Amino acid sequence: MKTFDTIDELRAWVGGEKRRGLSVAFVPTMGALHGGHRACIEKAAELGDVVVVSIFVNPTQFGPGEDLDKYPATLDKDLELCRNLGVAAVFVPETREMYTTNQNVWVEVEGLTSPLCGRSRPGHFRGVATVVAKLFNIVAPDTAVFGQKDAQQAVVINEMVTRLNLPVRVALAPTIREPDGLALSSRNGYLGDADRQRAASIYQALLAGRDAISRGDRTAKTIIEAVQTRLATGGIDDVEYVELVTADTLEPIDRVEGRVLLGVAVRIGTTRLIDNVVLTVAADGGVTEAMLF
Amino acid sequence: MKTFDTIDELRAWVGGEKRRGLSVAFVPTMGALHGGHRACIEKAAELGDVVVVSIFVNPTQFGPGEDLDKYPATLDKDLELCRNLGVAAVFVPETREMYTTNQNVWVEVEGLTSPLCGRSRPGHFRGVATVVAKLFNIVAPDTAVFGQKDAQQAVVINEMVTRLNLPVRVALAPTIREPDGLALSSRNGYLGDADRQRAASIYQALLAGRDAISRGDRTAKTIIEAVQTRLATGGIDDVEYVELVTADTLEPIDRVEGRVLLGVAVRIGTTRLIDNVVLTVAADGGVTEAMLF
Repeated sequence: MKTFDTIDELRAWVGGEKRRGLSVAFVPTMGALHGGHRACIEKAAELGDVVVVSIFVNPTQFGPGEDLDKYPATLDKDLELCRNLGVAAVFVPETREMYTTNQNVWVEVEGLTSPLCGRSRPGHFRGVATVVAKLFNIVAPDTAVFGQKDAQQAVVINEMVTRLNLPVRVALAPTIREPDGLALSSRNGYLGDADRQRAASIYQALLAGRDAISRGDRTAKTIIEAVQTRLATGGIDDVEYVELVTADTLEPIDRVEGRVLLGVAVRIGTTRLIDNVVLTVAADGGVTEAMLF
Repeated sequence: MKTFDTIDELRAWVGGEKRRGLSVAFVPTMGALHGGHRACIEKAAELGDVVVVSIFVNPTQFGPGEDLDKYPATLDKDLELCRNLGVAAVFVPETREMYTTNQNVWVEVEGLTSPLCGRSRPGHFRGVATVVAKLFNIVAPDTAVFGQKDAQQAVVINEMVTRLNLPVRVALAPTIREPDGLALSSRNGYLGDADRQRAASIYQALLAGRDAISRGDRTAKTIIEAVQTRLATGGIDDVEYVELVTADTLEPIDRVEGRVLLGVAVRIGTTRLIDNVVLTVAADGGVTEAMLF
């Protein structure tokens, strides 16, 4: 497995692989890899001849007071996981390689970035879209894989790719969960034992929302209340949002129909956690979990 | 010469050229081609194995009340010029091919877009940067050539390329002028005879500014006044700006030093015209015209 810390060396290597006729599948990450990243890398291996992983904690997607300085770093373990999964190359740039001066050029995705996490994290998706555009231009992948757990990020990036005609196919890997349902996240490591136990209620609350829909409820307000009630029962009282939006355009809905995203963000102690389920409601009323795209 | 009106067909053709080992030089235009475009195409032919020209009047770079609806279209003549210059392919998309819905993703270049034309044309450079990013992603050129006459555009695009790591080299072709000094522009055709005669004073005024610097004047204010005086003498009374800025970062300067851009925008009748000279002031006081980069 190759590791590169400069753009020029990575580009030269990718160019060589492409000249050999190999397709490139790319998984951008911020490191602290877990089973969710593993699912992305495995998906990438299905979709491309060679897999490139980037590990870069992108400062422009963190707001003031967020956890940039304490974001977990486990580089040796990350590289070992990549090696075990057959990754061909890992790109691990320093911040100064990615941002040579104060960044003054931004990719802005309008509309999609205002609901859900966009409300409490102004500038977050601008930072995400910009660094992903930069990484796509550096790696020049045929395919890139993101995790559905960061659903809004996936929709924003897919929109960016479409509207800027980026020659990249965006694919998704499903959310991977602990046995008790907690979605894997690099931030789960921040949780102490009691908070970790409470965190299991996030997914249970999403399932309570799903159950309400399965029982025939179509009113967003009462479905959201079912989620909120289950969060409260689980001892989670700092709820940033519980929202029901369309799965394609992330527009808030009053009634559930077709494919919808039920998303949650909560704070447990000082740790902010998000999760979601994408649900398809069939004409016969059947409810199944689905992928965003 | 090939002409394409769909992204897919153009991409397939470019892909074939690249697999044959040929480099691609790209000249994006809005049509109504003139000698300035010719200079860009000739420069592109020096820098790449095959030249691709796009002809697309980009609606997102026109503001309300600007001349989108009357922008000159001379497609048959444009194609003939391209053919005569050995262009390999011309991309002529309809608006709906470039913008399938209302564009909601934008490339924003901060700072560089606020002086000069940015002040009177809010959103203009956002539209330019966005469509050029899209065209770069569609054409995938090795090199792209722009005209120095649109100096701020060239600096903005170069900054976008650098900061988004676009794998494209940006090159410039010099401003081409009529015998009386008027810079070639697709908008010159809007001018009636009397206005056309007045328009020659734009370049004469820039030269008056240059002469002031050659005579040893280094104070931006008095150099700008020399330009304004010459514009007034030439019967041009609707002056949008006369500005002296650094040639690399377009920052307004009080004193002339090193490489500077002297830029002018005026309105003659209803026609808005811009022009500029880039000047290098040597240590010995000598002043020479220069390229932006």
